[in-house]
Amino acid sequence: MTDSNAQQKPHDQMAAYLADDLVDVNVLIRARMASEHAPRIPEVTAHLVEAGGKRLRPMLTLAAARMCGYEGPFHIHLAATVEFIHTATLLHDDVVDESAQRRGRPTANLLWDNQSSVLVGDYLFSRSFQLMVETGSMRVLDILANASATIAEGEVLQLTAARDIATTEATYLQIVRGKTAALFSAATEVGGVIAGADETLVKALFDYGDALGIAFQIVDDLLDYQGQPATTGKNIGDDFRERKLTLPVIKAIAKADPEEHAFWKRTIEKGQQEEGDLETAIALLNKHGALADTRDEAIEWAAKSTAAITSLPDHPVKQMLIDLADYVVERIN
Amino acid sequence: MTDSNAQQKPHDQMAAYLADDLVDVNVLIRARMASEHAPRIPEVTAHLVEAGGKRLRPMLTLAAARMCGYEGPFHIHLAATVEFIHTATLLHDDVVDESAQRRGRPTANLLWDNQSSVLVGDYLFSRSFQLMVETGSMRVLDILANASATIAEGEVLQLTAARDIATTEATYLQIVRGKTAALFSAATEVGGVIAGADETLVKALFDYGDALGIAFQIVDDLLDYQGQPATTGKNIGDDFRERKLTLPVIKAIAKADPEEHAFWKRTIEKGQQEEGDLETAIALLNKHGALADTRDEAIEWAAKSTAAITSLPDHPVKQMLIDLADYVVERIN
Repeated sequence: MTDSNAQQKPHDQMAAYLADDLVDVNVLIRARMASEHAPRIPEVTAHLVEAGGKRLRPMLTLAAARMCGYEGPFHIHLAATVEFIHTATLLHDDVVDESAQRRGRPTANLLWDNQSSVLVGDYLFSRSFQLMVETGSMRVLDILANASATIAEGEVLQLTAARDIATTEATYLQIVRGKTAALFSAATEVGGVIAGADETLVKALFDYGDALGIAFQIVDDLLDYQGQPATTGKNIGDDFRERKLTLPVIKAIAKADPEEHAFWKRTIEKGQQEEGDLETAIALLNKHGALADTRDEAIEWAAKSTAAITSLPDHPVKQMLIDLADYVVERIN
Repeated sequence: MTDSNAQQKPHDQMAAYLADDLVDVNVLIRARMASEHAPRIPEVTAHLVEAGGKRLRPMLTLAAARMCGYEGPFHIHLAATVEFIHTATLLHDDVVDESAQRRGRPTANLLWDNQSSVLVGDYLFSRSFQLMVETGSMRVLDILANASATIAEGEVLQLTAARDIATTEATYLQIVRGKTAALFSAATEVGGVIAGADETLVKALFDYGDALGIAFQIVDDLLDYQGQPATTGKNIGDDFRERKLTLPVIKAIAKADPEEHAFWKRTIEKGQQEEGDLETAIALLNKHGALADTRDEAIEWAAKSTAAITSLPDHPVKQMLIDLADYVVERIN
């Protein structure tokens, strides 16, 4: 490892290591998001796919496959698959959340319409399905089919639980496992499976992805209350305004006195929000140490993710995955 | 064939012949539309799946498999797969169309919300994917992945072309092939493939499903202008109000004088509809024989579908498929 590598962020370091693969992934993504007949499709997808996403999930697949010594062509297909599934869920999420901004840019549902977001999301999901079929691996298909169902189930669970202030940390974890971690763990797992890695290795990669995904989402939910919009591309308080019950709020509600409980009931459950409520919410989160506790929990999950792979044989990618887990939670320091 | 069979509608006759299989399909559908964690899912799906749909698409799969002498268990999985894909597209369609009624009942997006329709649709699509993976047939997966992409592409094409009065009959056919016929042809094709039928037979089944699906959709579009709401569960003029350019209107526009052209431009393209416009539209369709021509076209496609299978060896199911094609267009007589 050179000095210049050591100064790079873990994400960039991994991108540099996987540069050739990433070029192939981008070529494949562009080819498959096209549509001969419906030009609206590439318009919408280009908006998202080119919007400076970090390609984190496809990199996880590429990294896992490389770490397992894979030399075939299909990790590229799987990386593109994972990015398409991710993009499809973003498109549908934006309709569900009625979001106006994503990665600091207007969302597709705002630029076009909800209809385009729904249908182009369906298209990308179908395209991802075609890509995985091309790998010819029934086990890969099984993993990704199950992950897709878990993702959708997590999203529906979030829809029904999000505004219920009785929601527990256990339910929150289940939602996060579904909506975020399922794709992270599938991304790393299929990288191992396509490489024909042994079961111990495949299991370790799954566990890494699962814990990393959970850490990643907890950080995301935390940044919604304490991040810098310029860095995160998110507006502070979006989750609060959308009445989304995330870990910091669940922790604060657990320690709320009756008056505070009434505040959360009014703002989150009934959605009667007034000027100054966000500031009150953040003050309550701080009062009960909910932000600090949430941060600790994210760090714990990141530690679990690195623990899952520490005993694996040495490989340049292994250290990068460990650094990446540290980096995910570094964003909140 | 008994006398009582001869008096049944082709659809009911086929349902009687496939009764045991259909019981298994319904059991599987109920088991797989459940969700341990998100009770909203079975609420929404039960509303649709139990709503008296005719199970036409799953019957096509079962019929094709039976006709090819299949004796394994997986035609049940594929029939459920096809019904789930169909139900998922209905849920998403209702969001896209902002529909209030489906099969004579309020739509899910009206009873719950658009969010539930989008996410439960995604869930059903994922569940369908799991079901097909269980068949272990890579070819089946390939067919259904391609069909899914064609369906989504057809829906997006419809979205962008629907209100453009320059849309041609060729584009209409492409949309119909996507949004409707692709699932019909996949339904019959996978029935043959899972049975290990020879390529000629598989091709014939595909062609039958393709032409039947086109006939079915043309009939549907025609009934939107001349059907009986009590029989069809559709409101007359829904497509007109939703500014959806279907075959009758495309045919009328092709023969429109400048004044009529302005009428279509105002009502469909600009969406400025006034009291009495639907009546004017129907009068124009009749004036140019557009309804009669559309009806002829449906009959032609039904004839193509029966032609695709006439040369196949005799089998009770073969005659039922032929009768079914006749019946699809009989609805408009």
